[in-house]
Amino acid sequence: MPKRKTLTVRMRIRIYAGDRILGPGKMELLSHIDETGSLSAAARQMSMSYMCAWTLAKELNRDRSRPMVEMSRGGASGGTAKVTRFGRKILTLYQKMERAGNKAAGPYGRRLARLLK
Amino acid sequence: MPKRKTLTVRMRIRIYAGDRILGPGKMELLSHIDETGSLSAAARQMSMSYMCAWTLAKELNRDRSRPMVEMSRGGASGGTAKVTRFGRKILTLYQKMERAGNKAAGPYGRRLARLLK
Repeated sequence: MPKRKTLTVRMRIRIYAGDRILGPGKMELLSHIDETGSLSAAARQMSMSYMCAWTLAKELNRDRSRPMVEMSRGGASGGTAKVTRFGRKILTLYQKMERAGNKAAGPYGRRLARLLK
Repeated sequence: MPKRKTLTVRMRIRIYAGDRILGPGKMELLSHIDETGSLSAAARQMSMSYMCAWTLAKELNRDRSRPMVEMSRGGASGGTAKVTRFGRKILTLYQKMERAGNKAAGPYGRRLARLLK
């Protein structure tokens, strides 16, 4: 039986604003934090070390007047994390951008995939 | 004087067709081969080793019935490389896909960049 070919178009968008970079890694982390309410759970879901997730979260909060994640340390569960209103605004816009980009690129991607079969 | 903030939205699109992957690296290589007519010159333009470029070119030619690059070895210049008609078709579609994706994602990217300033 011939193997079914899987066709996927994957788009990764990065925003470079001065020395700040916003890309799929940080945005995926933010969305997992939003789901789980915990930085360590979000890190696990991404198969990422806690230290790595922590570094990304610090990066998301670099503008101290507008943090994207509120973190509280300690407690039995090892602290909680919560996406701020500003963080959610950024995440929503990023996801809309991804969807719009994918929608526009999709037809070309499918034509390419057919040509490559 | 305040540093000007540079805003850029960079999109990288990969096509996964079964076990074949077509992404920005191979497509950039193909476009440099088209410009220079040489694999080693294309590699230099991408600050990539010749071996690495050669591996990518082999990957582009994996479907032997439809190669994307025609390579001839030897000669004083160390061989020439030429993008085939099929290679150019793929490259053109890929570039159109990038442009369409960027155009659709652009307005969101600019809003994000403004929020991050």
